[in-house]
Amino acid sequence: MFSFEELTKQFSKTFNTRHFPGTVPSLYNPAEYFLSIGGKRVRPVMCLMGNELFGDIHADAWHVANAVELFHNFTLIHDDIMDKATLRRGMQTVHAKYNEPTALLAGDVMMIASYECLNKINAPYLHKLMSIFNKTAKELCEGQQLDMDFEQQQNVTLDEYLHMITLKTSVLLAASLQMGALIGGSGEGNQELIYKFGKNLGIAFQVQDDYLDAFGDPKKFGKQPGGDIMANKKTFLLIHALEVASASQKKELLQLMSGNDADKVAKTLQVFRDCKVDTWSKNLKDKYLDIALKHLEDIAVISSRKKPLQELAGFLVQREY
Amino acid sequence: MFSFEELTKQFSKTFNTRHFPGTVPSLYNPAEYFLSIGGKRVRPVMCLMGNELFGDIHADAWHVANAVELFHNFTLIHDDIMDKATLRRGMQTVHAKYNEPTALLAGDVMMIASYECLNKINAPYLHKLMSIFNKTAKELCEGQQLDMDFEQQQNVTLDEYLHMITLKTSVLLAASLQMGALIGGSGEGNQELIYKFGKNLGIAFQVQDDYLDAFGDPKKFGKQPGGDIMANKKTFLLIHALEVASASQKKELLQLMSGNDADKVAKTLQVFRDCKVDTWSKNLKDKYLDIALKHLEDIAVISSRKKPLQELAGFLVQREY
Repeated sequence: MFSFEELTKQFSKTFNTRHFPGTVPSLYNPAEYFLSIGGKRVRPVMCLMGNELFGDIHADAWHVANAVELFHNFTLIHDDIMDKATLRRGMQTVHAKYNEPTALLAGDVMMIASYECLNKINAPYLHKLMSIFNKTAKELCEGQQLDMDFEQQQNVTLDEYLHMITLKTSVLLAASLQMGALIGGSGEGNQELIYKFGKNLGIAFQVQDDYLDAFGDPKKFGKQPGGDIMANKKTFLLIHALEVASASQKKELLQLMSGNDADKVAKTLQVFRDCKVDTWSKNLKDKYLDIALKHLEDIAVISSRKKPLQELAGFLVQREY
Repeated sequence: MFSFEELTKQFSKTFNTRHFPGTVPSLYNPAEYFLSIGGKRVRPVMCLMGNELFGDIHADAWHVANAVELFHNFTLIHDDIMDKATLRRGMQTVHAKYNEPTALLAGDVMMIASYECLNKINAPYLHKLMSIFNKTAKELCEGQQLDMDFEQQQNVTLDEYLHMITLKTSVLLAASLQMGALIGGSGEGNQELIYKFGKNLGIAFQVQDDYLDAFGDPKKFGKQPGGDIMANKKTFLLIHALEVASASQKKELLQLMSGNDADKVAKTLQVFRDCKVDTWSKNLKDKYLDIALKHLEDIAVISSRKKPLQELAGFLVQREY
């Protein structure tokens, strides 16, 4: 069996090649550019690990891993257009480097390329895999739309936010594992468990992401915290803070959100701390991590095979207690 | 066997239903809106006709027909964003009625829905159909990119333009017929012939479209001609005119293109006529129509089965001689 790091290396090596033809370079070079700026390749590796939990890695798992990574990159290209983001992984986004129409088309053609990868797998489970893939693909679009809706929406409940980030982030992690497991020969029960492992791990990861954007150590986190606060982004932290704040704390939060004062981040963080949002969010993260690990535990294979997935969980989410 | 009109009625009846769930209405209602504003439904009907040329229409042909129509509509939604078009079929485009991010996502989710339809077909030819579908899907993106490239390009040759419109328009007509034929049990040779019939018919249709936009009778054509001329759009007519014009005619054309005078259309049409572009384009259209019909003739089935496809050709392209 391979560790998460080993599989990441192996996947990156095979994936870092040209994916599109040399014809129509005005379309395909922007697509290649985006793939070349990297990424953690977590999702495709999860597909390989889902396979290896149940048996030796089958060639089909590599095809699905490629499909998943291409699909993920398609969503990033289009999300960047929608969010008018000019940088991703420290590099120019596709629409910033080229133009919006080309970025739109490069995303489209990358989605099609993901289906080309899927179509390389063996017939027996092509239908079932396509069905998981399509369902997940639609959920990602739903998550992105809800995310945009929430920007315009005055009140977003914790449940609504949880639903949105599950669709936007977690389901592709979960489905990657499930598709790998299916190829590995897993039955439906174990497929469901590994799906739930991935889904809850994804939620824990997102809670951690929201936490780090507020309270992260700039040296470890790699960027200055407070971006979400400056943008008034509805996060686990802000939504919970607004729910538990006293009348005066709520008033202060809303006042801080209405402006862009120099001390906006510092003052908001103080309200967060006063409301114990920091402790709450650490606990919430651990709660979802525990649920994830419990589902992994319940999968009916010998426990030594689960080690790489436990490592993965530790890589993605750092436990606080 | 059914006529083209009968199949159009049947298809429209089954297609005019809700295609997306009621969840996330902010995403799915825009998608439904666009499907509800109609369209000629030529491509899906061509899929059904391709099937019926070889045998009774199989349920799978309906699934592919739905996939083709959804894919076509996805391309229209995204093309309208890229072209900044506010009207389509006399109705607001999705990004004009809602907003660009939503239109982008509605297009994405419609492409995914087209793959959901494909995934309903039987296993034996799922791989082959997906392969035709994916190849065509990428070609459509290539065609759209080339079309945008040509807008920025000083010189476009007739061959380059022909290649672009083949990708942008003809290949989906051709592939729709071929996929239907495949489901109908056609062998590879006949599939190739029906593909070529569709491809050349599509080119003839596009030549006619360019012609009508310049010389069409407003009463029959349904809109005021001259739109392409006003927009300096590179069409079969303009490209050929620039190729055959004398030095003084070319100078006049370029001068007309550099401005937007009230008599721009009338004067350009006069140069076109002086260069015999009108006769040339009618002949070109007939040439491609003849090639198309020759391929249809060569298909090894009894000629009475070909009648609906001959009718279709007559519906799409009116012969001039």
